Amino acid sequence: MKNLLLTLCYDGTNYHGWQVQKNAVTVQETLQDALEKILQIRPNVIGCSRTDAGVHANMFCCNFHTDTEIPEEKLLLALNARLPLDIAVTAIREMQEDFHARYFCKKKQYLYQIWNDKIRNPFYENYALRLTTPLDCDYLNSGCKVFLGTHDFSGFCSTGSAVTDTVRTIYDMHFTRDGKLVTFCVEGNGFLYNMVRILVGTFQYVAEGKIQIEELSEILASRDRERAGKTVPAKGLYLNKVYY
Amino acid sequence: MKNLLLTLCYDGTNYHGWQVQKNAVTVQETLQDALEKILQIRPNVIGCSRTDAGVHANMFCCNFHTDTEIPEEKLLLALNARLPLDIAVTAIREMQEDFHARYFCKKKQYLYQIWNDKIRNPFYENYALRLTTPLDCDYLNSGCKVFLGTHDFSGFCSTGSAVTDTVRTIYDMHFTRDGKLVTFCVEGNGFLYNMVRILVGTFQYVAEGKIQIEELSEILASRDRERAGKTVPAKGLYLNKVYY
Repeated sequence: MKNLLLTLCYDGTNYHGWQVQKNAVTVQETLQDALEKILQIRPNVIGCSRTDAGVHANMFCCNFHTDTEIPEEKLLLALNARLPLDIAVTAIREMQEDFHARYFCKKKQYLYQIWNDKIRNPFYENYALRLTTPLDCDYLNSGCKVFLGTHDFSGFCSTGSAVTDTVRTIYDMHFTRDGKLVTFCVEGNGFLYNMVRILVGTFQYVAEGKIQIEELSEILASRDRERAGKTVPAKGLYLNKVYY
Repeated sequence: MKNLLLTLCYDGTNYHGWQVQKNAVTVQETLQDALEKILQIRPNVIGCSRTDAGVHANMFCCNFHTDTEIPEEKLLLALNARLPLDIAVTAIREMQEDFHARYFCKKKQYLYQIWNDKIRNPFYENYALRLTTPLDCDYLNSGCKVFLGTHDFSGFCSTGSAVTDTVRTIYDMHFTRDGKLVTFCVEGNGFLYNMVRILVGTFQYVAEGKIQIEELSEILASRDRERAGKTVPAKGLYLNKVYY
């Protein structure tokens, strides 16, 4: 029995997230369909995380056990031929028997793209939130410092999550600008439900003057979802790196 | 009567090019539909060039005459509200009475994107040609020099064009690489039907060893379409800049 780690890249626009759902097409289901056609048996693929509907992945990791004798490089070609064009398998690697894509994950990096202009960019309609308020990255970055380190992020979590441990460690958080495209980058040992999107929504309020930079550490400490910003749309969010 | 210059940006994936066609949706028709709803009269919009089905534009210019009293900045907002999300009007400017988006155009810059890897990138499926042969930009750039200056490009023109003067001047032509994304950039005073796509197809043959760099000037001088490379797909092509 081999334990294979698959690295994916996908445009999440047309999917209801990663995890199999009853009445909606998901990346996991689509991948399992393709694997079943190749392996003649339906594997249960374990993802490194759930991603929401419309969220993209430059890198997503998952694993499954198989007794196939198809070499990895052949399986990769066969899978890419079977998968729809908005999902690609970029690598397949055999791991130790107990490797688990979720439990073994040490660190993840997410990006959130913002098209910061009064006029929409047709090429970013499904790939960035549009904000008209000018974003000052240096100013927002001074607020990012508040979130670095280990904190209880329960105020930055949507309801509907079964997670009870809401403490997470953030290693990096910053905004960068490339012309009118502003990218929020955050790296941590784990993320609560909608956490990245609520963080971005909070910085949107900072930019709009609805929240002051000085209030951020108090908002974080309050653990009160009502005090943080709104949850920004999924379409700007990318799972960018997964570390094991 | 005002003569308005509109600058557009559009994702051409869902359009059969710029110019109105009998049985297909085009950017010109979509724009004229939106203008008609706002102005209560259907203008005839003059484009800076035709673009083919699936070709994109970071910048496309067009003009029309109107006696509307709606100020330009209001018209811009109204148009962007009326247009589908894959077309945006980025600027509107009043020009002199005889300004003509096509005849007054001095120079155009096109980009052609190539995803240069064995594995597809889901985010570039509609925005780049995928080539697996590794492209050496320095090597290809030595071939680009052949095309600089004024030449008869009739060997780099698809049939079906009514144009009789096939002499064009190329001011710049080069390849650049950013990771696995290779971009071909070409600037000239005008371009024949499919000229950019045939140029890229010719360099694809150079990269694949089917055409030698030393043959390029002879192929150009031969004015023989059969000797140049194939026409690469529209999806990688962007009209990037229009100069007046």
